[in-house]
Amino acid sequence: MKFNCDYMEGVHPQILKRLVETNLEQTAGYGNDPYCASAKKKILEACECPDGEVHFLVGGTQTNATVIAALLHSYDGVIAAETGHVNVHEAGAIEYTGHKVLTLPQKDGKINAESVGSYLKWFYSDENHEHMVQPGMVYLTHPTEYGTLYTARELEEIHKVCQEYQIPLFVDGARLGYGLAAEDTDVTLPVLARSCDVFYIGGTKVGAFCGEAVVIPKKGLIPKFFTTIKQHGALLAKGRLIGIQFDTLFTDHLYLDISRHAIVKAEKLKKALVEKGYTLYLDSPTNQQFVLMENRKKNELLEKVDFDFFENYDDTHTVMRFVTSWATREEDLDRLIEIL
Amino acid sequence: MKFNCDYMEGVHPQILKRLVETNLEQTAGYGNDPYCASAKKKILEACECPDGEVHFLVGGTQTNATVIAALLHSYDGVIAAETGHVNVHEAGAIEYTGHKVLTLPQKDGKINAESVGSYLKWFYSDENHEHMVQPGMVYLTHPTEYGTLYTARELEEIHKVCQEYQIPLFVDGARLGYGLAAEDTDVTLPVLARSCDVFYIGGTKVGAFCGEAVVIPKKGLIPKFFTTIKQHGALLAKGRLIGIQFDTLFTDHLYLDISRHAIVKAEKLKKALVEKGYTLYLDSPTNQQFVLMENRKKNELLEKVDFDFFENYDDTHTVMRFVTSWATREEDLDRLIEIL
Amino acid sequence: MKFNCDYMEGVHPQILKRLVETNLEQTAGYGNDPYCASAKKKILEACECPDGEVHFLVGGTQTNATVIAALLHSYDGVIAAETGHVNVHEAGAIEYTGHKVLTLPQKDGKINAESVGSYLKWFYSDENHEHMVQPGMVYLTHPTEYGTLYTARELEEIHKVCQEYQIPLFVDGARLGYGLAAEDTDVTLPVLARSCDVFYIGGTKVGAFCGEAVVIPKKGLIPKFFTTIKQHGALLAKGRLIGIQFDTLFTDHLYLDISRHAIVKAEKLKKALVEKGYTLYLDSPTNQQFVLMENRKKNELLEKVDFDFFENYDDTHTVMRFVTSWATREEDLDRLIEIL
Amino acid sequence: MKFNCDYMEGVHPQILKRLVETNLEQTAGYGNDPYCASAKKKILEACECPDGEVHFLVGGTQTNATVIAALLHSYDGVIAAETGHVNVHEAGAIEYTGHKVLTLPQKDGKINAESVGSYLKWFYSDENHEHMVQPGMVYLTHPTEYGTLYTARELEEIHKVCQEYQIPLFVDGARLGYGLAAEDTDVTLPVLARSCDVFYIGGTKVGAFCGEAVVIPKKGLIPKFFTTIKQHGALLAKGRLIGIQFDTLFTDHLYLDISRHAIVKAEKLKKALVEKGYTLYLDSPTNQQFVLMENRKKNELLEKVDFDFFENYDDTHTVMRFVTSWATREEDLDRLIEIL
Repeated sequence: MKFNCDYMEGVHPQILKRLVETNLEQTAGYGNDPYCASAKKKILEACECPDGEVHFLVGGTQTNATVIAALLHSYDGVIAAETGHVNVHEAGAIEYTGHKVLTLPQKDGKINAESVGSYLKWFYSDENHEHMVQPGMVYLTHPTEYGTLYTARELEEIHKVCQEYQIPLFVDGARLGYGLAAEDTDVTLPVLARSCDVFYIGGTKVGAFCGEAVVIPKKGLIPKFFTTIKQHGALLAKGRLIGIQFDTLFTDHLYLDISRHAIVKAEKLKKALVEKGYTLYLDSPTNQQFVLMENRKKNELLEKVDFDFFENYDDTHTVMRFVTSWATREEDLDRLIEIL
Repeated sequence: MKFNCDYMEGVHPQILKRLVETNLEQTAGYGNDPYCASAKKKILEACECPDGEVHFLVGGTQTNATVIAALLHSYDGVIAAETGHVNVHEAGAIEYTGHKVLTLPQKDGKINAESVGSYLKWFYSDENHEHMVQPGMVYLTHPTEYGTLYTARELEEIHKVCQEYQIPLFVDGARLGYGLAAEDTDVTLPVLARSCDVFYIGGTKVGAFCGEAVVIPKKGLIPKFFTTIKQHGALLAKGRLIGIQFDTLFTDHLYLDISRHAIVKAEKLKKALVEKGYTLYLDSPTNQQFVLMENRKKNELLEKVDFDFFENYDDTHTVMRFVTSWATREEDLDRLIEIL
Repeated sequence: MKFNCDYMEGVHPQILKRLVETNLEQTAGYGNDPYCASAKKKILEACECPDGEVHFLVGGTQTNATVIAALLHSYDGVIAAETGHVNVHEAGAIEYTGHKVLTLPQKDGKINAESVGSYLKWFYSDENHEHMVQPGMVYLTHPTEYGTLYTARELEEIHKVCQEYQIPLFVDGARLGYGLAAEDTDVTLPVLARSCDVFYIGGTKVGAFCGEAVVIPKKGLIPKFFTTIKQHGALLAKGRLIGIQFDTLFTDHLYLDISRHAIVKAEKLKKALVEKGYTLYLDSPTNQQFVLMENRKKNELLEKVDFDFFENYDDTHTVMRFVTSWATREEDLDRLIEIL
Repeated sequence: MKFNCDYMEGVHPQILKRLVETNLEQTAGYGNDPYCASAKKKILEACECPDGEVHFLVGGTQTNATVIAALLHSYDGVIAAETGHVNVHEAGAIEYTGHKVLTLPQKDGKINAESVGSYLKWFYSDENHEHMVQPGMVYLTHPTEYGTLYTARELEEIHKVCQEYQIPLFVDGARLGYGLAAEDTDVTLPVLARSCDVFYIGGTKVGAFCGEAVVIPKKGLIPKFFTTIKQHGALLAKGRLIGIQFDTLFTDHLYLDISRHAIVKAEKLKKALVEKGYTLYLDSPTNQQFVLMENRKKNELLEKVDFDFFENYDDTHTVMRFVTSWATREEDLDRLIEIL
């Protein structure tokens, strides 16, 4: 019984069923198959931007590096929260493409229109800054690394600043489903399609074996992106594997439904944690719950259930992470709550 | 009915069965799961180098770029046949990592110890060559882009030259199965493990959805390769997808058996082509068969069956490619032969 | 007495005089000084493109790498003759910036509109080529590595092909002076400014300590080029060093006059070589003369005078190079002719 | 009269004299001339490491990027103060080579053994950090961007930590002369040669037109560095320009003497500033003096004398910078003090 992360099981049973059914069909490679075409159409419909583009890549770090490198000029860097995944846990994949991550301070994993705007204003206030890396785009994660969410208004405000300075806004949605399915959020796929220039819908962490769907609401924003994807080694030869998965996820709201499943479980866990007197490190409305624990308690629990180290808090306390997913079983959750 | 390439179907049914069976098990991410561990062990055993290392990456271009960049110093280039996949069809993925492809002339897709040795001798004959890209490794494909094969002796001779100049030899085995299963070849996995410094066993084109198994016979040759794989965006979060596939492929000789299936089909096709008076462009012992055709004939056939354009020969002739695979059905082949 | 190359002395005496006169003046750094401003103005006037831009970089390889990287998208490569300097003697500086050099066959160091056009036509004839490096620009050297020259018409024809495919034409003029001053050439600075998108006027090999003047006839072609130059480590802090040198070279036609000096010497040498029965390897109208020599003769001469190895011809013959320059003294040339 | 920086004049008169004297001599290119050889010998003697290596590059940003890229594996980043030149004012030159700058907090521009050690200890405390950029070296500036200096002991302690983790220590000495000539410092060239793995002796800011001398105390630390320098476009064709300058600077202690000149002037200025009631932003023992000024006062002064903006302090105050150099004239300094 593990609550470490949301990519511990295989694939949602519906997807597996489709993979089995289609297995011996012959289709063209590199995403030129009918499943990819169908999936792209459904995704664009869900995003209410039928004239946009969708591209399928394999994993999150790869998608971030490929999209960011494709959006930036060689003299540009990417603005991100100092806790942004691209700045911390991608082994320098962004820098490997030649670009600096320009970090801004964060609160609960988020940056905001004010800090982005101040940075850009300061940057353009002095021509000596032409000796510095140019701010070429803004990168957000939604949900953030702390499980928190932007509001539609916050996204729109950041986007407005980006537009003022003519730089694109890119949203990393590796866990997007769990953000869309959260309670009280007003961020939907159409909101995202209107509020940013590129974003991706994470498959790996939301029921797929692998695959991230990059959505470019305005067609043509990134010329020759196919070749760029190939150049980054991010083009799957048997592209239909991703196509079939996303086609299934975007049929009958499966993507939202299975994300909702994780949220219901996470909310139940959160309630139990609070009732049992645990200290939430922050208030996360998504499938990741962060708990500040005494190390003694942490070690005691770890003997009974697997969950994740997040960060050291002080000499005697640690921030730990519990993660639910599309696959979390009610009985496992109940056992966890019992153990807690 | 398509004979275009060997990645048109899903996955070998045995693999699908294992994916279904294991689907809801919880395992650790990033390849730290028991299936990856088991697959690695079986691969090393098959290669008779139990102390070596295996790393799983997702696709071929990615594997080439990651391994080559990991093996080279920044001032090095990679020696390859001018027809080598890294030089032609990878959208500049190698150059994107900062390295030049140093091309040698080829015959039937192959280079040889003599030409490699001459190049290296010439390079080190003049100290002015320090203004040039240093030859830092040798890259071969086996089978080559033309479906041809090296002999064990040819590999060993090239390796000997590499050792003399202290540069590694890397063999791209995207279609390795079809090479190992060819008739009359003396190249086996243990031969490869002895004759080169790094090679990979292709999964994508030999029955898997995706996945390439990089074998490093001498442990430690590439330090911190895990981080490098991550940096290249080549680390699959749900690594078990590749682990389960290779674990299945390396159980009960499945990898060889299904490759052999393709060879039997290809030999039958080759025989039929010759009997019907077609001109083979070259003699390929593997699953790709190249035929020199009059354009009129080519267009006529393309109305009845899908196969692949390879290259223009002259104004009235084209080199076309027929590919068999683990999934080729006898009845389809018979229909193809009838059409021919 | 050396005839190896054209960068063996210090600086033209006129330049030295200006450096001495201005030495203790205080000026702003990074090229923001009055000498750079004046030099840029004079260069643009000489090029008859007063609205263009000039940027000063330090050396040739650096200039090639910086300009090419600035002109290309990340998915692009640069078309060049297989003998082009960027392909051979720059230690992979172009690939280090992530770009492939796409080579075309050459004749006497030159490529032509036909071969460029055929390549581009072929490239865009098949959509499968999106798996390949995109041809993003054309690179020429004028004079070439073999001392040969394009005609104005040849440049214009290549440019026309480039315009048809909307890619820029870049001319490496590391030895441009010796091309402009050649007999019977119709390529002038205004011709260059009209026939290509970017070119540079070499200082290092034509009388300066260092410095190359990049001319962009149409202002704005390369946005934020200052930052790109800085990023490449190609921005001289004491930019005036280059400014003063080019300001002097472009006062009273000094650049052309001193180049003409080298041509007069080269023509005299060529005449002597022919009269004495030497075999010219090719007919060079510029300051580099290539002679095909028996190795015995070559070794005999090398005991008496320094000149340069160019390439092995066969087991008993070598192509050797004699180079004149702005600094070649009549008495040394006479002695060389005597020795020959 | 300008006190903005230390690269506003040409070259020290002694150097100019040598350039004039040697101007028409013929020497080999790319640093293979007797002046480079002599300069290297003198530098190694001054550093008391006769068996070391010296390489000449042209400018500071270029030297940092070239050395850092040469020292790091592709998966490594460079540890630096958040105010380090490589992190701020080099237009992303380090990231352009593919490497992340891993920043540590600074005090007066310095980092220390403790913070470096803690970072490295933390990094290696958790194997999950293999998803992060590996710390591959430490970069310091001496003097720092704030004009401050490390003590010999501080350098040795940082070096000890580096050795413990087997990563090199690199010291950027763009203004090294002004550090060596400071009062009360115990850091000498031999101390540097013992306490770090690579450092460079800045020429551009200490009396030369251009040129930085990279010292590698232990020969062979960076293989094929010549080719790497070429690849980075950092190899000067007419290398003697740098050779002659450094040969002069390292004859009869000229480098130290002219640096001392700047220090004497800076100390006089500092004394005057304090006496006149100005607030020093920090206590700099070198040629850069930082003053915290009311904006009104600042603007008043800028009408009479040129000096440099450093950073905004608050809405009404600014940190300004006065810089002396080898070229600062007593009469100008007196006039400045009068104006203050």
